[in-house]
Amino acid sequence: MIVDVKSPVPSDIEIAQAARLRPILEVAADVGLTEDDLDLFGKYKAKVHLDVLERMKDVPNGKYIDVTAITPTPLGEGKTTTTCGLSQALHYIGKKVFTCIRQPSQGPTFGIKGGAAGGGYSQIVPMEDFNLHLTGDIHAVGAANNLLAAAIDARIMHEDRLSDEGLAKALCPNDEFTPWMRKRLAKLGIKADKPSDLTPEERRRFFRLDIDPYSITLNRVIDVNDRAIRNVIVGLGTKADGRPRQTGFDITVASEVMAILMMATSLRDLRERIGRMVIGTDKNKNAVTAEDLGVAGAMTVLLKDALMPNLMQTLSGSPAFVHTGPFANIAPGNSSVIADMIGIKLATGGYLVTESGFGADIGMEKFFDIKCRTSGLIPNCVVLVATVRALKMHGGGPKVVAGIPLDKAYTEENLELVEKGVANLEANIKIALKFGIPVVVAINKFNTDTEKEIQIVKEAALAAGAEAACVSEHWAKGEEGAVELAEAVVAACEKPSNFKFLYPLDIPIKDKIETIATEIYGADGVDYTAEAERKIKLYTELGYDNLPICMAKTHLSLSHDPTWKGVPKGYRLPVRDIRASVGAGFLYPLCGAMRTMPGLPSRPVFMDIDIDLETGKVVGLS
Amino acid sequence: MIVDVKSPVPSDIEIAQAARLRPILEVAADVGLTEDDLDLFGKYKAKVHLDVLERMKDVPNGKYIDVTAITPTPLGEGKTTTTCGLSQALHYIGKKVFTCIRQPSQGPTFGIKGGAAGGGYSQIVPMEDFNLHLTGDIHAVGAANNLLAAAIDARIMHEDRLSDEGLAKALCPNDEFTPWMRKRLAKLGIKADKPSDLTPEERRRFFRLDIDPYSITLNRVIDVNDRAIRNVIVGLGTKADGRPRQTGFDITVASEVMAILMMATSLRDLRERIGRMVIGTDKNKNAVTAEDLGVAGAMTVLLKDALMPNLMQTLSGSPAFVHTGPFANIAPGNSSVIADMIGIKLATGGYLVTESGFGADIGMEKFFDIKCRTSGLIPNCVVLVATVRALKMHGGGPKVVAGIPLDKAYTEENLELVEKGVANLEANIKIALKFGIPVVVAINKFNTDTEKEIQIVKEAALAAGAEAACVSEHWAKGEEGAVELAEAVVAACEKPSNFKFLYPLDIPIKDKIETIATEIYGADGVDYTAEAERKIKLYTELGYDNLPICMAKTHLSLSHDPTWKGVPKGYRLPVRDIRASVGAGFLYPLCGAMRTMPGLPSRPVFMDIDIDLETGKVVGLS
Repeated sequence: MIVDVKSPVPSDIEIAQAARLRPILEVAADVGLTEDDLDLFGKYKAKVHLDVLERMKDVPNGKYIDVTAITPTPLGEGKTTTTCGLSQALHYIGKKVFTCIRQPSQGPTFGIKGGAAGGGYSQIVPMEDFNLHLTGDIHAVGAANNLLAAAIDARIMHEDRLSDEGLAKALCPNDEFTPWMRKRLAKLGIKADKPSDLTPEERRRFFRLDIDPYSITLNRVIDVNDRAIRNVIVGLGTKADGRPRQTGFDITVASEVMAILMMATSLRDLRERIGRMVIGTDKNKNAVTAEDLGVAGAMTVLLKDALMPNLMQTLSGSPAFVHTGPFANIAPGNSSVIADMIGIKLATGGYLVTESGFGADIGMEKFFDIKCRTSGLIPNCVVLVATVRALKMHGGGPKVVAGIPLDKAYTEENLELVEKGVANLEANIKIALKFGIPVVVAINKFNTDTEKEIQIVKEAALAAGAEAACVSEHWAKGEEGAVELAEAVVAACEKPSNFKFLYPLDIPIKDKIETIATEIYGADGVDYTAEAERKIKLYTELGYDNLPICMAKTHLSLSHDPTWKGVPKGYRLPVRDIRASVGAGFLYPLCGAMRTMPGLPSRPVFMDIDIDLETGKVVGLS
Repeated sequence: MIVDVKSPVPSDIEIAQAARLRPILEVAADVGLTEDDLDLFGKYKAKVHLDVLERMKDVPNGKYIDVTAITPTPLGEGKTTTTCGLSQALHYIGKKVFTCIRQPSQGPTFGIKGGAAGGGYSQIVPMEDFNLHLTGDIHAVGAANNLLAAAIDARIMHEDRLSDEGLAKALCPNDEFTPWMRKRLAKLGIKADKPSDLTPEERRRFFRLDIDPYSITLNRVIDVNDRAIRNVIVGLGTKADGRPRQTGFDITVASEVMAILMMATSLRDLRERIGRMVIGTDKNKNAVTAEDLGVAGAMTVLLKDALMPNLMQTLSGSPAFVHTGPFANIAPGNSSVIADMIGIKLATGGYLVTESGFGADIGMEKFFDIKCRTSGLIPNCVVLVATVRALKMHGGGPKVVAGIPLDKAYTEENLELVEKGVANLEANIKIALKFGIPVVVAINKFNTDTEKEIQIVKEAALAAGAEAACVSEHWAKGEEGAVELAEAVVAACEKPSNFKFLYPLDIPIKDKIETIATEIYGADGVDYTAEAERKIKLYTELGYDNLPICMAKTHLSLSHDPTWKGVPKGYRLPVRDIRASVGAGFLYPLCGAMRTMPGLPSRPVFMDIDIDLETGKVVGLS
């Protein structure tokens, strides 16, 4: 540990600021990275160059571990903290270890949630940098997304005022096509060497995108919790201010650009995915892409540095990549493919620990079926985080609400609630086992948990097929608190991995959705709205039916209804709509209303955050 | 030079990418900075810690040079290029030199204008980094501004739904005031140790900001040219989405937060300026500040790294700070005070070359009366950039429009237009001389300029009181092309500086405006609208009348009318409104409509920008 463990446990920021950080060059050297492989961002952060991947392509992969959780309470069950704690303990018992986690949005950091660098003695440091700006990747995503958004409205405005000839002359003043224009020519099946070769009909088809303003699905984004811009009317003012239309802002991490950055396997792949992004359709219902707008190259330029993973360290001084932070409902909710691809090489002979968002039914399923499918990496072990608190809730305990003190059912021994609640743990273990991967249960222990309560959890876990079930006290004790867990993970990784995807890509869209609904969520079947049926037909015609499925569902229940705890049975999953992230490469069925822009509460976290002007340090960040 | 000079001159990006960059640690070492003074951002950029200023406080200042220009054409007359070229030439003749310039907005980089790193063989490098993200300062400004904006609308929404008691309980759940709440208590003249001590009337006054939605002057910002969001309606949707109101988005560099970052002299000063930001008024017309919203601390935290100047290098390998980029009309249009304060120490025994936006009537006047007043630094020399092209325009030449080929009046010898146009040069020289500073004229030479044309300019410059008038060919030749200019600047800096401000702060607002209008712009007087008169009365009552004046006026004429070229006479300056940037610390009278959000043209520059996937290099950035 690079910090001394104290009791009682100080605040997260106090622990983080007390750490004796290792220079990141030294952390990098531990895994064979030299100064030339890095772009330093101060002494304690660095971006790692992508060419490391090519250099290490023949190095054997490390073992690959995904940390997931049972169905959580709204407070979260300590998945990131366990990811850090497990990594620290692996390092402590002498194993080589690399950690890959997501970068958090600044919105929640200043809103309700506070920071996300882990907690207690299991954190990524420097925690201020982790929670604020980091190396600017989220800002780069916002810049790229918003350049695309501006390009759309500006194009509509200019097409309104220009004739076909005027448009052609404006876009090709020297009667030459640009490289991206040649891609559009090919897509439209038009053969021409230069604009003046086009027939008037071809010229019109080529230069006039004729975007249907009502079809535009791309929102602008901002990395702030700003409820007032969820729904806006833009384009007011004069003719030069564009055409009025209703649209909205999402938080940056909810954007497809963020999902693309997470999914991209190389700079070339990033460029191609951005080019494929569909922003809406023309008035004849043809998809209009970022490539058609001529902005995909500039967007890639804005993102080229953001594609490099960010190297930081845990409180044990072990290396960690913090990279990309897509939503876990409308997007895969995992850290980047490229960070894992590099990290698994750097972890050769050791372990790569990563985390997937929400519970095993959502983040882990997407980790396997979307992320691993894209990266080609084979996982060796799943760590399923459980808390006595959450299991009591699943057993029928009172409602758990953020900001309101816990009912005494949660702070005093209540074996009956635990007994009833372990069914949720068993269901989540079985979900993980479906993919052929050994499961280790990590019981993230709170002070108020009793021995008897924990014993019930352990027995249920083993009975359901877990390799082991270990109490973990990494929050209070750091690396030493998770040694038993680390050793169980090491043992599980020696088991054969019979990894398989839940579904193949080449079956119909409905079959994929129904496989997930019945096998993972325990539904009896799926009901589609007319709109969802229409989209399935459309996407099948457009050839998007071979994409994997990224379910947008609540994380607070195995079902679609956040109030159904435990293991919901005897229900059908309603799919109200399906959307396509063609660039990122998945379809996302909507099982409920997904909020893509959080709001500030009546007392936002920012009210406690300030600079100590004597020391220059951040105070109040939690 | 760190690049070989070729003829014909390649594109800016080709020159920049061919440069053999010096490691920034080496560049820093030249001026006495060690690795511990820096946060590296890759090998070729670094942020410099602010404590350097304290350590060097007793070191004598270098000479201080401001580069300004005559009244420009819409194409610009090469001020940044001359700033780089002069710096490179000073370095070439063996002088110690430090350059301080602004960071450009990404909006114009992808819109009409392209990059802003200088041009030809006079540039700041790496030019891609200069034009894209840099170290994220502009993104940090956007994040801070937009957190404040979200805080305003969220507060209105929560005040709508909560009683006074509910509001007090939400904001002070533990019956304790935060430090910033104590500032608000003091401002309201309420004495209380804890919230429960407040009378119901005090509680209402303290907790209910009661913001008048129609009074809000703070816009949201984004660093993209996005015409469609100049005017928007926010708050549509449901009750939880806030109250609908009309507002707008500005480009980030037009924000008061950017102006504050430019003006701040220390972290403490930054914190205080942010706290003072007025976002509008309550329903009783009292100013509501960022401090009142409890968000000033968090905003400062978002900006703490952005306050550190960014170290880069010129094409001669000499050090340059690139820091902050406030607008030059509604804001001072200069690089940061703090970069100059540090740079002038690092330039001890040598020269600090900086640049002010627009012409001498605007950027230079603000440089003297606002920036130097804030920093306490005394300038030694003004370099006034002139081109034969612009002087011909002032002499009655045809209209110059960006994107349309120049009339032959500009590309062939036309002594009559030059003879008539030099009056504008003379007027600008006289403006500079009013401040008691020696003036050197830099004639930024184009291929088509003839010997006779240049001779006319030189003679006029000397007759008007310039110390020297030198032809400069730094664009085509780099450092060697500006040696004569550098030597003239060295000589001018040996002259006594009799620096004085144009006006004292403690005179009435109107007296300050009229002094600028008559002495700098050559107007006969000033006419105020009723709204301007009302604001003058209001700001005087509020005690803002001691702030300096930051005129918001077109840069295309010495007058307020962009079509009046040469030296307009016999007119009165109309002031249609006056606004206050209380945090940044100035009042800005509006002499015309100032656009604070550019738009994308029919063929934006982004259409040529892409990544070369073979080399990973940026192409098409100009």
